[in-house]
Amino acid sequence: MAKNLTTRQENYAQWYNDLVIRADMAENSAVRGCMVIKPYGYAIWEIMQGVLDKMFKDTGHVNAYFPLFIPKSFFSREADHVEGFAKECAVVTHYRLKNAADGSGVVVDEDARLEEELIIRPTSETIIWDTYRNWIQSYRDLPLLINQWANVVRWEMRTRLFLRTSEFLWQEGHTAHANREEAIEETLKILDIYTEFAEKWMALPVLKGIKSPNEKFAGAVDTYCIEALMQDGKALQAGTSHFLGQNFAKAFDVQFLSRENKLEYVWATSWGVSTRLMGALIMAHSDDNGLVLPPKLAPIQVVIVPIYNNEETFKKISEKALQIQSALQARGIKVKFDDRDTYKPGWKFTEYEFKGVPLRIAIGPRDLQNNTVEVARRDTLEKEVLQMADIDNKVEHLLQQIQDNLFRKAYSFRESNTYKVDSWDEFRDIIENKGGFVLAHWDGTAETEERIKDETKATIRTIPLDSRPEPGKCIFSGQPSRQRVVFARAY
Amino acid sequence: MAKNLTTRQENYAQWYNDLVIRADMAENSAVRGCMVIKPYGYAIWEIMQGVLDKMFKDTGHVNAYFPLFIPKSFFSREADHVEGFAKECAVVTHYRLKNAADGSGVVVDEDARLEEELIIRPTSETIIWDTYRNWIQSYRDLPLLINQWANVVRWEMRTRLFLRTSEFLWQEGHTAHANREEAIEETLKILDIYTEFAEKWMALPVLKGIKSPNEKFAGAVDTYCIEALMQDGKALQAGTSHFLGQNFAKAFDVQFLSRENKLEYVWATSWGVSTRLMGALIMAHSDDNGLVLPPKLAPIQVVIVPIYNNEETFKKISEKALQIQSALQARGIKVKFDDRDTYKPGWKFTEYEFKGVPLRIAIGPRDLQNNTVEVARRDTLEKEVLQMADIDNKVEHLLQQIQDNLFRKAYSFRESNTYKVDSWDEFRDIIENKGGFVLAHWDGTAETEERIKDETKATIRTIPLDSRPEPGKCIFSGQPSRQRVVFARAY
Repeated sequence: MAKNLTTRQENYAQWYNDLVIRADMAENSAVRGCMVIKPYGYAIWEIMQGVLDKMFKDTGHVNAYFPLFIPKSFFSREADHVEGFAKECAVVTHYRLKNAADGSGVVVDEDARLEEELIIRPTSETIIWDTYRNWIQSYRDLPLLINQWANVVRWEMRTRLFLRTSEFLWQEGHTAHANREEAIEETLKILDIYTEFAEKWMALPVLKGIKSPNEKFAGAVDTYCIEALMQDGKALQAGTSHFLGQNFAKAFDVQFLSRENKLEYVWATSWGVSTRLMGALIMAHSDDNGLVLPPKLAPIQVVIVPIYNNEETFKKISEKALQIQSALQARGIKVKFDDRDTYKPGWKFTEYEFKGVPLRIAIGPRDLQNNTVEVARRDTLEKEVLQMADIDNKVEHLLQQIQDNLFRKAYSFRESNTYKVDSWDEFRDIIENKGGFVLAHWDGTAETEERIKDETKATIRTIPLDSRPEPGKCIFSGQPSRQRVVFARAY
Repeated sequence: MAKNLTTRQENYAQWYNDLVIRADMAENSAVRGCMVIKPYGYAIWEIMQGVLDKMFKDTGHVNAYFPLFIPKSFFSREADHVEGFAKECAVVTHYRLKNAADGSGVVVDEDARLEEELIIRPTSETIIWDTYRNWIQSYRDLPLLINQWANVVRWEMRTRLFLRTSEFLWQEGHTAHANREEAIEETLKILDIYTEFAEKWMALPVLKGIKSPNEKFAGAVDTYCIEALMQDGKALQAGTSHFLGQNFAKAFDVQFLSRENKLEYVWATSWGVSTRLMGALIMAHSDDNGLVLPPKLAPIQVVIVPIYNNEETFKKISEKALQIQSALQARGIKVKFDDRDTYKPGWKFTEYEFKGVPLRIAIGPRDLQNNTVEVARRDTLEKEVLQMADIDNKVEHLLQQIQDNLFRKAYSFRESNTYKVDSWDEFRDIIENKGGFVLAHWDGTAETEERIKDETKATIRTIPLDSRPEPGKCIFSGQPSRQRVVFARAY
């Protein structure tokens, strides 16, 4: 295991925090609750953005940008919405500073108080639906399929890098439709996109489902989500897609003339994933040696490290390395040749291992003689010596294997940490001592959900979309239940 | 000219505003001074971002993300900096809302007042240099070449879409170097990147130069800039690159151990371009028929419009259109086939003309017979009938011609609106009645610059980098001058 890295066993939360910082992903800033995303972490986020953006555009969405500020009064328009966000709003009250009279520095200029306070967007439904009112008159203006990449602020008391920060980066889609069916179809289409992204790119298996009323988005009719299981047995909500019904259209008076020439309220969806995905990515695959990245999201997929003790050998190794590098680049593989002489090979091995580079190629004097290279996989930590012939093909194949292996590993971890439970004692035991997803019957009431949460800190993560009706009795109240739902403690 | 569009002659400012709104680029939001960037405008911004981002990365820069908030006390650390920005700061004072006691809605919760107010970043030097302190210990940590894509807020009383808004989008580069020479080299390298972007991509000729002390960035030693001339004879600062010396390193105590094992303050640069470039792009080329876009930044480079009066003809035209479309796409040309039957060809012609699509291809029944298409250029409004053979090659060539022509036109406009002036009367006359760039002698004092501004509203836009020393007398004070500088009224 890596030096100075707390192990998962010792303290999972500490392991995560140490890992994020030591792998140069992010760090806490001078502003409470706000993080700095460092270049290595940001490079991963940029890859994520690129993939998701393409998926959105391929399904007809376009990007736009709406203001950072929301007038306070907009919040009150949708009752559930304001209830959900009022307690975590950063509020702008003034627009000027001035020199303190006593020369001690700058102070807020009380003459520059805003007539109406502005909220930093915690999410943009209100400002966007206020804007849509002018954009939508007729069914011809629909659907409106818009996404925004932006920063948002939700004031948090306890923060954790990527997982819960007062400011975070995200995308938020806001679509408008002529009828309920089309809006629900959009909600589910996006849920599929999120699922595909999580599983194919992040190598992270997720459960698709719907939230219980307690857990749904403030202002939504239904919240759909993808839910993943982390190595400590806690669940992480990785993305949400909301069917908003006509709630925001009514709150902001957005009506359209239908094909039948009737004035109707517009149907809405909203959906988002955030830099929280970075936390999920890190926690899903990494180990006590540091970060483990799926090749498809790695800023460096292959690193080549030369091992030499004289200039002549270095020259020959370099030739070979550059040859491999260009062969891999021709296949679109991101490869770095680390030819720095200020660091030793052993240091470099540890460094790239810690940073989760999927594949390391080492080339030493013996490899020159034998026309070989040594290849080390980050996921299994296995090494093998490969003949140079066809090396680009072999590397590409290995990267695919690593991607597949990470998914399989995460999938089987989830499988072996998912329990069907029918007694309250067993439920408590698993939640408290093992963690994982617990499939159990629930009577469908908010009250029961609340009491289970109070007693065990477990919440309903999702009501699975693909589960069959299975009559049973609520694990807590004994009342009838129509299907099992997924409980877990969660991030 | 386009219906309902004010002409440039009538009212240039109104023409600009109408154009931005009617071309679906942007609009004012419900929040004073903040704009909504609409999908068509944002698509252009995304292309700009992509090109610039690649240029930065190709020169060794990486992206990162720093907090939106800056503690108020950070501002006071660099005296010029706080002086420059204090009057336009949006200030966060509270972090929670609550229900009003009288049930009238939500109000700011006075119990949730921040100990220290937070400023929404107007620019990020202070928070970034506070962070760099922990990242830089030795010369081995240098240079640090970091860029950030972000939103910033500078509270403005009079705003104009894209040109001056309270919130805007931009990139801000912040680099750290071991010595003065390297930092200056970086400042100039970025100025070259901005110049190349303006001229090769935006088709916008710019003057490269240095700002007078009055006009430089608050906290900089020297501010370099690119300056463009708009059609109304006013100048527009399109990008700035600052050599910050050791000012911020000293303010935030960022020292490093040099190769010679001495503790030294780090040298800095910062540089940025913003959504203001969108304003420059629009004003530089557009006309009384609407937007004119250089092909390299157009979201739609070619639009194909079918002209038909029966289904059979439409089918044949479609076949041909799709054939052209895929031939153009194979060359990387962005082409749209507008086959909607809800709009007439004439309406479509006007629409795409207004939105500045560089090339329009119309296909009618006669074109089917003759194996031709009709091609119309947006820049010259010229039409010609082309044989289908080799059409992709012809279109690609035409797009390049349009790109070149727009640059040439803007260049010759600037040339014919640049004046060498040696008398104060002539200076005033040109500034007040003609506009344009005025090359005149200046005695080098802030006082003279200020008085010229008071009397004519003209400022020194730039002290050109490539001009030769030319002794003369200040146009205002008669004092000796070493070279001419560029005066203009400016956006």
